[in-house]
Amino acid sequence: MDVKIDGPLYSGKAKDVLLTDDPEIVAVRFRDDITAGDGEKKDTLEMKGYYNSVISAKIFEVLEEAGVPTQYLELREPGCILARKLEMIPIEVITRNIAAGSIVRRFPFTEGQEFIPPLIQMDYKSDEHGDPMLNDDIILALGIATRDELEEIRRITLQINSVLRDFLKSRGLILPDFKLEFGRDSGGRIRLGDEVSPDTCRLWDMETGEPLDKDIFRRGEEGVVGAYRRVARMILDDEDIERWNVEL
Amino acid sequence: MDVKIDGPLYSGKAKDVLLTDDPEIVAVRFRDDITAGDGEKKDTLEMKGYYNSVISAKIFEVLEEAGVPTQYLELREPGCILARKLEMIPIEVITRNIAAGSIVRRFPFTEGQEFIPPLIQMDYKSDEHGDPMLNDDIILALGIATRDELEEIRRITLQINSVLRDFLKSRGLILPDFKLEFGRDSGGRIRLGDEVSPDTCRLWDMETGEPLDKDIFRRGEEGVVGAYRRVARMILDDEDIERWNVEL
Repeated sequence: MDVKIDGPLYSGKAKDVLLTDDPEIVAVRFRDDITAGDGEKKDTLEMKGYYNSVISAKIFEVLEEAGVPTQYLELREPGCILARKLEMIPIEVITRNIAAGSIVRRFPFTEGQEFIPPLIQMDYKSDEHGDPMLNDDIILALGIATRDELEEIRRITLQINSVLRDFLKSRGLILPDFKLEFGRDSGGRIRLGDEVSPDTCRLWDMETGEPLDKDIFRRGEEGVVGAYRRVARMILDDEDIERWNVEL
Repeated sequence: MDVKIDGPLYSGKAKDVLLTDDPEIVAVRFRDDITAGDGEKKDTLEMKGYYNSVISAKIFEVLEEAGVPTQYLELREPGCILARKLEMIPIEVITRNIAAGSIVRRFPFTEGQEFIPPLIQMDYKSDEHGDPMLNDDIILALGIATRDELEEIRRITLQINSVLRDFLKSRGLILPDFKLEFGRDSGGRIRLGDEVSPDTCRLWDMETGEPLDKDIFRRGEEGVVGAYRRVARMILDDEDIERWNVEL
């Protein structure tokens, strides 16, 4: 894809979004910054952005192939993805297959308990308000999504969960939970945006049960980047490594 | 109703539930205790329970007359209601017509903003967990209500809101929001339980806009019982005062 990257549009906690000379296309730069606990815990971990970008690119390709509408266009180079410009919806859509993290602290669920069917939770993406949980009535009253959009987001989310669990399982990974963000493209169609990576998913090694995701950082342990690199190795095919010229 | 009150079954923050010699009937004693902020703020205000019991009895009668299934059987005497025994569902169903209180602190709504349609929020009734907000998926995963029960609770809640707003309006009161609790009777039917009073509703004087509810206590102001008494005077008919022998 032959587009020229221009100046910055928006800077998030771990990514920069840049304009290109095509008004419908943005470039997403994955930085090495990592944060947890609403930004209370911060660090910069070399190569983190690099691995996350290739993991996310691979997963978005798997999802697109399964018919999921996403923002993804191509991995321009490790660290930088070209994507459709979306009007983002300020909702963090969290899908849980296994109870872990905040849901266990907030409600009487048991760590490791399976959710069948999966449990979907929507949080309001707002640092100012501390990302409080939403319900449909509040979403509609805030005017951040319509009832039809909510229904579409739920439908796509369950489809993603199904595709992603199967794919990750085939690569030796368990998917306890993950966070998605959606937006509207220029035609008003709901598409998956943001990233899908060890920053936004819990990922457990199927054989050892060990976490290979941001929980390592949340717990203040070593080996964050090593774990992310291992995830990249597990999910990338040799062909991906070659065409993208990834160093793993 | 000729039942004999036996020993205590359960003691809440502001009411005691007592067994009777009829296994299907309980007696609810309204105490003078008042709490706010998850029980952090506490006091005992003479006659508070008395006024709340007659206000709640009157409102339950208005609701029953409109076809709402409730727990209410009769006011045995001011301070004590006879009610169907229910298996309570640990959900606080909050209906909001006008933005006030926690919803304004938690989300970017403006104090006084009208919600059309009304906004329903369900919180998990659990002191241990700090009454966190629920969504349907979490309710189903916790197993505290079925999908059909949730639908029925929503339907009844909207019916109650409509009946209650009209009734209170006819008595000079605005209903910005209120909290309901539901339970299952011995036949498994969903019925309104608990109480509907200035402890559980925001009630504003239609002419002056002043609060006549627990917000007076939350703000640490004087005149709580006087306001509750005024509400009782506004909503009770002369006939109610006579048949119940209420002193107002």
